[in-house]
Amino acid sequence: MSQAIKLYTAATPNGFKVSNLLEELKAIYKGLDYETHKIEFSKNEQKSDWFLKICPNGRIPAIVDPNRGSGDGFNVFETAAITIYLQENYDPENHFNFSKNEKDGDLYRSEVLQWIFFIHGGIGPMMGQANHFNHYAPEKIPYGQERYTNESARLFAVLEERLKDRDWLVGPGRGKYTIADMNGFPWVMMGRHSGVPDAKIGPNVQAWIERQWNRDAIQKEMLKPGYAEKHGKTIAEKSQQNAKWIREGNAQNKI
Amino acid sequence: MSQAIKLYTAATPNGFKVSNLLEELKAIYKGLDYETHKIEFSKNEQKSDWFLKICPNGRIPAIVDPNRGSGDGFNVFETAAITIYLQENYDPENHFNFSKNEKDGDLYRSEVLQWIFFIHGGIGPMMGQANHFNHYAPEKIPYGQERYTNESARLFAVLEERLKDRDWLVGPGRGKYTIADMNGFPWVMMGRHSGVPDAKIGPNVQAWIERQWNRDAIQKEMLKPGYAEKHGKTIAEKSQQNAKWIREGNAQNKI
Repeated sequence: MSQAIKLYTAATPNGFKVSNLLEELKAIYKGLDYETHKIEFSKNEQKSDWFLKICPNGRIPAIVDPNRGSGDGFNVFETAAITIYLQENYDPENHFNFSKNEKDGDLYRSEVLQWIFFIHGGIGPMMGQANHFNHYAPEKIPYGQERYTNESARLFAVLEERLKDRDWLVGPGRGKYTIADMNGFPWVMMGRHSGVPDAKIGPNVQAWIERQWNRDAIQKEMLKPGYAEKHGKTIAEKSQQNAKWIREGNAQNKI
Repeated sequence: MSQAIKLYTAATPNGFKVSNLLEELKAIYKGLDYETHKIEFSKNEQKSDWFLKICPNGRIPAIVDPNRGSGDGFNVFETAAITIYLQENYDPENHFNFSKNEKDGDLYRSEVLQWIFFIHGGIGPMMGQANHFNHYAPEKIPYGQERYTNESARLFAVLEERLKDRDWLVGPGRGKYTIADMNGFPWVMMGRHSGVPDAKIGPNVQAWIERQWNRDAIQKEMLKPGYAEKHGKTIAEKSQQNAKWIREGNAQNKI
């Protein structure tokens, strides 16, 4: 039995990517456990000295794995890197990725990475900016609203095309549910909130969102009272509050 | 001897990440070669049907590896995923990453990924937005200029802190030159152009930039006539022109 992994997080899209995966893994691997440490944005805890030692970027989520590394354990920051680390170390049966030993397994693993980077460098940052200009910016700036809403819609169209004739982003046939899908879901399910017009959220993307809401692990994690509600109402309200605290935290220029 | 890898690219920061790595690999592994296919933004070639089959996001760089996959070969898109694919498949001696067989090699490999994601989701997109609002936006929007210049400067401070007491982002002692550094360099060396004030480009980041300019492979690739000049003057001018074409291409909403 391994020691519980420490997860430093909050109820945000990036936070859910990791806790959803941990719930998926816990349901399969009985020895695996994790402890959640909530980071309080209202206290600027993400910029505290102790947390910056774990995550030099001062952002959630981050994990400490007491089973590896030296001292208190091995620290992992950056959402996508955490999901890859957990899959590589705690999913020995490769339920959520491809095995290097299966036919073309290393190529499918590369495709998983390709879509994770598409999400991590495109969907996440651009929807984040759309949220900012559509909801949180202290002044109304149509140029910013239009720029990031359009770019988010363009990225949704890339996903829509990819999901034509398939259930999941990567794999032969209709694909296999992997960490690539898990990295996309908590942002993409908030598309409407971020300002992507309904007409730009295609039927294949919508079906892919529903397919993930049907996962027990995701319902268990994201529909907890006070957490996300289906289609992101609560998570959206929380984001608004968090954005204010994060802005104030950054303004202090601790980093 | 393997067949030449096809690289679809242009003289942009993301393009250079891949061509720099290929030059590094070519200098070590004598059988390795690649062919460069320049993508013409002025003709909106990145949104052409044939290129979208290789890169569904319609962005450079992308590669086709004729030695793997079926048909014409295996396609890889997303800059960071390409560098990881090339390192895993064409750097068997692990000159630019850690071996899983060395002590803590898998943990160092995770750290390489963590910094690549930090760069791919932070440095790249945020410096891209700073470039946009500081140089290319058709209207002057101080809020956008300030938002992304400040965020870029904050990310530079995270790098500065990381590079305190070390030469490279990852590895024991003063670190080892890996694909993490290569992913960061072509953006970070343009910091001044993107609007990051000189005072916010710390001495450790500056020394790390110079250390990479001293690499033969990087000089060979990035100082070609008409390509980047040291500190990014030419690349900056090209970016300005490219940004116009990319904007026009996106406006056509091919995707």
